Amino acid sequence: MNLKQQVGEKAAEYVKEGMVVGLGTGSTAYYMVEALGKRVKEGLTITGVTTSTQTKEQAEKLGIPLKTIDEVETVDLTIDGADEIDANYQGVKGGGGALLFEKIVADYSKKVIWIVDESKMVKTLGAFPLPVEVMPYGSQQLVRIFEGKGFYPTMRKNEDGENYLTDGGHYIIDLHMTKIEDPQSLAEWLDGLTGVMEHGLFLNRVNTIIVGHESGLEIIEAR
Amino acid sequence: MNLKQQVGEKAAEYVKEGMVVGLGTGSTAYYMVEALGKRVKEGLTITGVTTSTQTKEQAEKLGIPLKTIDEVETVDLTIDGADEIDANYQGVKGGGGALLFEKIVADYSKKVIWIVDESKMVKTLGAFPLPVEVMPYGSQQLVRIFEGKGFYPTMRKNEDGENYLTDGGHYIIDLHMTKIEDPQSLAEWLDGLTGVMEHGLFLNRVNTIIVGHESGLEIIEAR
Repeated sequence: MNLKQQVGEKAAEYVKEGMVVGLGTGSTAYYMVEALGKRVKEGLTITGVTTSTQTKEQAEKLGIPLKTIDEVETVDLTIDGADEIDANYQGVKGGGGALLFEKIVADYSKKVIWIVDESKMVKTLGAFPLPVEVMPYGSQQLVRIFEGKGFYPTMRKNEDGENYLTDGGHYIIDLHMTKIEDPQSLAEWLDGLTGVMEHGLFLNRVNTIIVGHESGLEIIEAR
Repeated sequence: MNLKQQVGEKAAEYVKEGMVVGLGTGSTAYYMVEALGKRVKEGLTITGVTTSTQTKEQAEKLGIPLKTIDEVETVDLTIDGADEIDANYQGVKGGGGALLFEKIVADYSKKVIWIVDESKMVKTLGAFPLPVEVMPYGSQQLVRIFEGKGFYPTMRKNEDGENYLTDGGHYIIDLHMTKIEDPQSLAEWLDGLTGVMEHGLFLNRVNTIIVGHESGLEIIEAR
């Protein structure tokens, strides 16, 4: 069993009867959703809130009852992957393109668990490109601003070479910054930039991190 | 000639040969675009950058050559309406639903002119509802947050009673705050709120305001 599968299945154990569960997106969250689907078939009653059309399709196939984030009052627990987590447990997400919906669901969750293999744990964020979800109208102007800042922006493309379109109907610009010295300042600057719909910096948002090491699982209580 | 038409035609005089001009949206900007169309027919060469499908259709009919904001390097001058302008020349826009594209175009403009009739000039912002453009997914959660803050939110509807959809594919929540004591803080809070795509607070963004009074036009150099 690979590390992603190990942490995914471990995280599914945190889900209790009757919970409203935020279902993350990506290759690690995939295994968590599979494990939950198995438990639902065995009789567990939960309500899933999905963070992408991809996870929605997977959950529907597995027979997990679903609601949108607007149909629930709150989410008891969200389990999701992450692309990078630094020494202060700040994260970068959005490699899979679902950052906006993931952040929406996380914001209404009482508890958030991130599940990662050990390669995602870093000292400083930035080696993984930071995704910025932007309005198509004006996106080239934003690319110029990011170039001016030395952030090495690239428009994310799909397999046809077209600009990648998110579930929200936006583009993604990936910033290749190598090092993000001050994630908080960067997040505030991006938040205030017209045309930026969301960004992949998830700050002060995770409660528990499950890290898969070759030697076994590590559980970190982040806050 | 009504006040809106007077300020609209006056503003069109600021447009010079060869300029790239941001064309605002709304009932006052309408007259400015009409006046520009007339000058283009008389031989003026300009490039228009529109802020909505509504203005795009109007400008196309008038034969004004158009480009998107991504096809120009910068905009020389943007002329647009406003719903409220306070004593510090801070504005609320978005009554017409085009706030996101209007703010994108304004941000890349060397100079911004707002054209209003005198009823829009106020001491403090807030009597006019503040539009907040939001992602449909999670919009009901945002309504609850705004209710909790005492901001009296209402989902904007179209004539069919459905949620109004912006050109960007988002909803609009109107906040009925009556008084906005600190626009800067409110703007920063909204900027940082997940699911908020843009808001109608246009702060430190206008250079010149043309106000139509019954007694004549007033030109304010705001900064």
